[in-house]
Amino acid sequence: MGKTLVYPKQVSNTVNRLKDRATYDLGAIHSIINSSHVLHVSFNPAPSDPFPAILPMIGQMGSFDYPSASIDEPLDCYLHGYVSSRIMNLARASEGEGLPICVAASKMDGLILSLTPHNHSYNYRSAILHGYAKLVTDEAEKLWAMELITNSVLPDRWRNSRIPPDRVEMSSTVILKVRVVDGSGKIRDGGVHDDQKDADNAEVTERVWTGVVPVYETFGEPIPSPTNKVKEVPEYVGSYVAKMNDQNREYATSAVEEEH
Amino acid sequence: MGKTLVYPKQVSNTVNRLKDRATYDLGAIHSIINSSHVLHVSFNPAPSDPFPAILPMIGQMGSFDYPSASIDEPLDCYLHGYVSSRIMNLARASEGEGLPICVAASKMDGLILSLTPHNHSYNYRSAILHGYAKLVTDEAEKLWAMELITNSVLPDRWRNSRIPPDRVEMSSTVILKVRVVDGSGKIRDGGVHDDQKDADNAEVTERVWTGVVPVYETFGEPIPSPTNKVKEVPEYVGSYVAKMNDQNREYATSAVEEEH
Repeated sequence: MGKTLVYPKQVSNTVNRLKDRATYDLGAIHSIINSSHVLHVSFNPAPSDPFPAILPMIGQMGSFDYPSASIDEPLDCYLHGYVSSRIMNLARASEGEGLPICVAASKMDGLILSLTPHNHSYNYRSAILHGYAKLVTDEAEKLWAMELITNSVLPDRWRNSRIPPDRVEMSSTVILKVRVVDGSGKIRDGGVHDDQKDADNAEVTERVWTGVVPVYETFGEPIPSPTNKVKEVPEYVGSYVAKMNDQNREYATSAVEEEH
Repeated sequence: MGKTLVYPKQVSNTVNRLKDRATYDLGAIHSIINSSHVLHVSFNPAPSDPFPAILPMIGQMGSFDYPSASIDEPLDCYLHGYVSSRIMNLARASEGEGLPICVAASKMDGLILSLTPHNHSYNYRSAILHGYAKLVTDEAEKLWAMELITNSVLPDRWRNSRIPPDRVEMSSTVILKVRVVDGSGKIRDGGVHDDQKDADNAEVTERVWTGVVPVYETFGEPIPSPTNKVKEVPEYVGSYVAKMNDQNREYATSAVEEEH
């Protein structure tokens, strides 16, 4: 049996509320990050600004030094951005370890409709990482990360598009590498939970429908652009759309049964 | 013609990148927040902690003082949480205006598959708000916000569940009210954009399929809980599921055509 790697519990990442839903497993946390189209990245723009900022970004976990590392091993978080964006300027100017940031991803899996508003909930998966962000300056690592991130939009898309990026494309793109310090995840699955006093109250149970509405992401039929010259939707596009639609629906539906 | 209310442009909320996709309209920003199941809320846990924190939360825009205010008028952001969670403790202890936070919401509408990785993109809608969070202490306002938030999970659910909340439920729930200081939104719709040099390159255009894969959220068939006693799925549940499925698919598909 393999060993499950977990992030160290620290004040910053310890889940205090509903601890039984918490996970510190690298594999679970990295999977939520990697399967999310959009990551929410938080940073502090300036000492004079009281508000943290949040930026929606595209990113992916991976290891340039150990490319064969699997999802449950230590990985870095690579984030894609534009050369002159504020977070990139801050990371460029940051000294020492880099810019302290928080990366978050959340996936909705269902509406939990209980007898009382108080017991309403969602089935969901969420993950956060804390880490220090620095710009990737090594050209080979940058190119590797661009391929990793493009293929997270659609598997195998990189080699099926016009590569390599030219000089202008390389210089206008910036990749942030986040050295992860800690992380945590939270997963809620299962069905409705009601308090006994409500479950025993016939007036309530005869009137209030309880259950779960599964929620999942769907990919529609690919729509060719007016300038597209390739007659058929390629297999790697069509099969991914079909696979994800099955997988997403299946997860949200079976999560209702899989109480942890 | 009505006047469109916009948030003031400040350093903290001004969109620097791809300005033509930016919006400061209250209506557009509030709509993105209100139609998102999960909001990402960022705050600074402690002066000694270098990392901002992000918490996934449920919330909704509204006005207790002017309940008839429409979506494009000044509104507060109400967030739902547990009494002893870290953000609630910080907001409770905060002095003066309240705890400075950032609220973010993002919705994915499609994968934009262009000739080059560099021109790949998403159709999406995202919004952020900056504001000061304080606990709602007035009982009437708290109850009003709990109804607002429950009905954002599923319209009309509040009065179709066991209400009012009892004393224990009221005291274990905390509602944060965020006085919004500024906000901004970003909307990307339309199709593929390629550079002329790639569009003119037959080797590339004959090989690379370009187009959009619409992405949207789907609600599955409601699954009654084993303890449910109500025979039929109620109309307000079924009609909402059907309406949202049509609306979400329609938005993601028509967004491809609606270049702004």
